[in-house]
Amino acid sequence: MIDLATIKSPVLIIDRQKTLRNISRMLAKTQGTPTVFRPHFKTHQSAGIGEWFRELGVNKITVSSIDMAVYFESHGWKDITLAFPVNIREYRRIDQLAHSIRLSLIADNEGSVDLLARKLTQTVHLWIEIDVGDNRSGVWWEDREKILQLAQKITASEKLQFGGLFTHSGYTYRAGSVSDIKKIYEKTLGIMQGLKSFLGEKGYSDIRISLGDTPSCSLVDQFGDVDEIRPGNFVFYDLMQLNLGSCSADDISVALACPVVSIQPQRQEIVIHGGAVHLSKDFLTNDRGERSFGAIAMPEGEGWGNLLDNTFIRSISQEHGVVKVSPDHLSKIKIGDIVLVIPVHSCLCADLHAAFQVIDPAAGDHRPNTHLEKLTINHE
Amino acid sequence: MIDLATIKSPVLIIDRQKTLRNISRMLAKTQGTPTVFRPHFKTHQSAGIGEWFRELGVNKITVSSIDMAVYFESHGWKDITLAFPVNIREYRRIDQLAHSIRLSLIADNEGSVDLLARKLTQTVHLWIEIDVGDNRSGVWWEDREKILQLAQKITASEKLQFGGLFTHSGYTYRAGSVSDIKKIYEKTLGIMQGLKSFLGEKGYSDIRISLGDTPSCSLVDQFGDVDEIRPGNFVFYDLMQLNLGSCSADDISVALACPVVSIQPQRQEIVIHGGAVHLSKDFLTNDRGERSFGAIAMPEGEGWGNLLDNTFIRSISQEHGVVKVSPDHLSKIKIGDIVLVIPVHSCLCADLHAAFQVIDPAAGDHRPNTHLEKLTINHE
Repeated sequence: MIDLATIKSPVLIIDRQKTLRNISRMLAKTQGTPTVFRPHFKTHQSAGIGEWFRELGVNKITVSSIDMAVYFESHGWKDITLAFPVNIREYRRIDQLAHSIRLSLIADNEGSVDLLARKLTQTVHLWIEIDVGDNRSGVWWEDREKILQLAQKITASEKLQFGGLFTHSGYTYRAGSVSDIKKIYEKTLGIMQGLKSFLGEKGYSDIRISLGDTPSCSLVDQFGDVDEIRPGNFVFYDLMQLNLGSCSADDISVALACPVVSIQPQRQEIVIHGGAVHLSKDFLTNDRGERSFGAIAMPEGEGWGNLLDNTFIRSISQEHGVVKVSPDHLSKIKIGDIVLVIPVHSCLCADLHAAFQVIDPAAGDHRPNTHLEKLTINHE
Repeated sequence: MIDLATIKSPVLIIDRQKTLRNISRMLAKTQGTPTVFRPHFKTHQSAGIGEWFRELGVNKITVSSIDMAVYFESHGWKDITLAFPVNIREYRRIDQLAHSIRLSLIADNEGSVDLLARKLTQTVHLWIEIDVGDNRSGVWWEDREKILQLAQKITASEKLQFGGLFTHSGYTYRAGSVSDIKKIYEKTLGIMQGLKSFLGEKGYSDIRISLGDTPSCSLVDQFGDVDEIRPGNFVFYDLMQLNLGSCSADDISVALACPVVSIQPQRQEIVIHGGAVHLSKDFLTNDRGERSFGAIAMPEGEGWGNLLDNTFIRSISQEHGVVKVSPDHLSKIKIGDIVLVIPVHSCLCADLHAAFQVIDPAAGDHRPNTHLEKLTINHE
């Protein structure tokens, strides 16, 4: 259970049972199929949580920075995809890392491919990033000429192995409904298969397809003819996913334990120690136009209880969270109490922490709480 | 100048000359007045930048967490105000810190005062936090009875020294104009002086008043009858302050150097390595309803040039920034180039970094770039 007495300042709590259930459920969808499960580790950034995946048989992962790749390599991961358009200024670190692991990169332009081809001394697997509608990075999927040029450049290079076609349909996060998310998945898969056929006609055989975000991977039952999926957020889920319909409230396995520092009965609000430096500033907007920077649950049983109705963080500053609280609940909260904040976006929330406190409800009090360290930011 | 060749991944650049000018300008407003300048160090969180203040004669500071207080104490700061409603779960660290420095705290409720009175073995200076309209923490300013009760409780305690009346008029950040910000300052000061008179009538003499946010402290020339001001953001300023009218673009002394990783000419956009984990997710909304997560400048001379017109980060994810670029500028940008992002909110941006690269344009190339470390998050 949550060791409330030890909590002095905001602490990120991970429910191990829910997390394992989330991992197992996603893994099960790929078992018995040719699709490789290559989870994105940017959400937890923790070697300890990585072990939970490894114990279930996962040995290929995705990361979003060279720092993360180096961190997980140092914890024994030997097959890593860096799912961020290659930053050619980092080619030395890339080359060094490719010495010890199977490293896959993505690129969407000739300049990056040329530089890698010229500078690398080690083999890397380079995928062509395709934009199927997200409008972030990637070659626009209709620009077949550019895709073919990149395939030619990659295969012409001695140090570059052509990995295949890679995409992230991040616009599922802006979808209006569960059926829209499923449609985006089908559309994405169709586009990628079309490009695979096109390259096949040009003589490129065995082209692999990599895709998969948490909303679509959570909602689609059969991934179809796909070589790998790379969801990340599903490990913890969060309010954004709940809002999209990708998970239930009970699937969310992360919460920030926050001390109550001020009570404002006349406004039906409390102030918690828990702000933008602990939660990030991601928010959801409800039907009444109110922003929520987090939902609230109370410590209960071995973990936390249901999300409190009409109770949410309405405003957040560097260290403060101002929480609108329904009258029923307000009367039960005292200065110094701990409330649990269910984050809007677990990836950015977890990124802000150096460690987790792990609870394991199924193990009851026989299993001590675990302090799990994770990668901490080292941006200059 | 910015050492572009050494930049491989996002690096936070601080212009020392602009920063010193920002500090000196604010300090000058208090010199020759009875008002103490107690700058908020939550913005930079850096012992090195703290030294720049110290060299100008500053010896009293404000912080927003016990972690920051401990960090600055370890760097020789002996008079620190922790400007966050006291978190009673941290009383042991508070007590320990009060052993070695003059520590000031704030509280807005009897529970917190009672606990401190019972538990502390060292003397701390406890201020009553007043809410003059920000609706965050603090006793609502019209609740004179509660303010008097707290004053009584504090003065009745052996270990608590009554510090005075403390407020943060953070709603200047939501003001519509420069004149509105000035009016908020006048209103705040009037309310605080009224409460001081009220407590004076009740026998509490020498009550001090502490206030001051960056917008009002930047725009007001005469602080009036105030005992201390505590602005923080002014050290770097940012787009939010520029938008409010608190600073000019040339006053902004912080920028994130970001490599270009993708160019999308058909959308007139580029993608940079620079995302929410480097910048935070604070944004501004322009007249056309477009969100900006940062403005863009190019390396120029010893630092960076003007903000590019019609060029801004329109979307941000964990590591990516998608930048809308005006056609004139787009044609000059190549893969691997460095652009400078002027952040929307420098406090949250700086919080995400472990160090700064300092440039010193006035010193030219005679002064090497300096690598300045800062406090890094240690949230569990």
